[in-house]
Amino acid sequence: MTRPSRTVLIVSDHTGLTAENTARALLAHFPDQPLRYVQRSFVATLEMAREVTREVAALAAQGERPLIFTTITDPAALRELESAPARVFDLLGPGLGALEEEFGVPAARSVGRFHDMHDQAGYVARMDALDFALATDDGLGDRQYGLADVVLVGVSRAGKTPTSLFLALQHGVRASNYPLAEDDFEREALPVPLEPHRAKLYGLTIDPRRLHAIRTQRKAASRYASLEQCEHEVRRAERLFSRVGIPVRDTTSASVEEIAAGILAQLRRG
Amino acid sequence: MTRPSRTVLIVSDHTGLTAENTARALLAHFPDQPLRYVQRSFVATLEMAREVTREVAALAAQGERPLIFTTITDPAALRELESAPARVFDLLGPGLGALEEEFGVPAARSVGRFHDMHDQAGYVARMDALDFALATDDGLGDRQYGLADVVLVGVSRAGKTPTSLFLALQHGVRASNYPLAEDDFEREALPVPLEPHRAKLYGLTIDPRRLHAIRTQRKAASRYASLEQCEHEVRRAERLFSRVGIPVRDTTSASVEEIAAGILAQLRRG
Repeated sequence: MTRPSRTVLIVSDHTGLTAENTARALLAHFPDQPLRYVQRSFVATLEMAREVTREVAALAAQGERPLIFTTITDPAALRELESAPARVFDLLGPGLGALEEEFGVPAARSVGRFHDMHDQAGYVARMDALDFALATDDGLGDRQYGLADVVLVGVSRAGKTPTSLFLALQHGVRASNYPLAEDDFEREALPVPLEPHRAKLYGLTIDPRRLHAIRTQRKAASRYASLEQCEHEVRRAERLFSRVGIPVRDTTSASVEEIAAGILAQLRRG
Repeated sequence: MTRPSRTVLIVSDHTGLTAENTARALLAHFPDQPLRYVQRSFVATLEMAREVTREVAALAAQGERPLIFTTITDPAALRELESAPARVFDLLGPGLGALEEEFGVPAARSVGRFHDMHDQAGYVARMDALDFALATDDGLGDRQYGLADVVLVGVSRAGKTPTSLFLALQHGVRASNYPLAEDDFEREALPVPLEPHRAKLYGLTIDPRRLHAIRTQRKAASRYASLEQCEHEVRRAERLFSRVGIPVRDTTSASVEEIAAGILAQLRRG
């Protein structure tokens, strides 16, 4: 017998990213609960909050008790949500109250303060980093490596491109990436374009069976995707990493968020 | 006289993304406070929490009262942080308590539940969407538009590529993008490859002066970057959008997070 899913409403006056992240971080601690996520972003007026409470009332009429996670800070809209027949998690309210006390000034409580462009310099840096990552993806533009914060090195499909794009978009870090190929393995030394940048190299490796699965999705039954070829490339890449002595991350069961956070922690220490 | 910056420590047992998002969402409501952000990710043991409290004690010895924002759920590590001479914001604790009550089961309180790959299907969808966005970026692979969730349309540098990459990486949405160019304007009709996909088109437009500034950074003093050319292209693009009747977003002062969230809200309504 499967239990019916419980509705999780993510209600935000803006993009909803913070509300969704926090709700998922909390609910990840209850892995056995069947849940159904519903996003309600840009709920910026009392009337829009009323639409949400009507939606919740309709669910409640069917015997459900939904969960509402909200980052709305407008007092009237928040009160409206809290009147709904649901469990309401006011994600920012308590923190704002404590910060008002701490700073001795009232919170702005204006709509959509975060994830807009009020941090203009940071935003421009992220977009520049993204242009940079795209221009130097997959070994392109290696003459620009001097401008990189980090250069990811690894065999094809080890996770370099998603990681460098995420580092740029989320963190404003300028990441290039260089794909290791047969020529590089034959030389048994650091590829020439990477030589001057040893201090910013970061190796990505992966379980050959996982790599085989990923490459098979792309080019089934090719030499490129064969387990034998994957084993060969990964072995040679790992040998190169250890000879050169650069930090290495196994991406087999790591998300881009985790790989990127590990690289950032490394950059801070470095 | 400038006030000294107050240190904001983001302390997480994992990537720190949720903690940083929430801290910044809260602190955005206090725009006049000078702050200095410090990330401490992967603080997964009591000993590592002690390192953080020692760091805080050193700041306090200089007369500062730092702010700690943490998503750590291990009780001993959390108690250690709470013993520091700082204002501590336990971002998940109260929510976890309320959810335990609501579900009637204890929270797992295991380290790093979120942003790992426990949602394997969701993760694979995000990575597939990213491959798709890259393969169909800038008008490439237009024969794959049938597989897209959305096709972004606009002139060069209106924000299409960052938006489609963000939609993929963050939301697992398959976004292609098509650049409008002179040929398209001369035809005065929807570009042929877009014809069958009218329902998933989404126009991006931008203030010509902003476009001029962005393009000048790329190719200064070119016809491409000239204000005249930017005005011409934006005017023709907007005319096309309105003739075809597709939703349009002005990206001049919108972040990729905002543009993407707007598109998602539209997709849900559609």
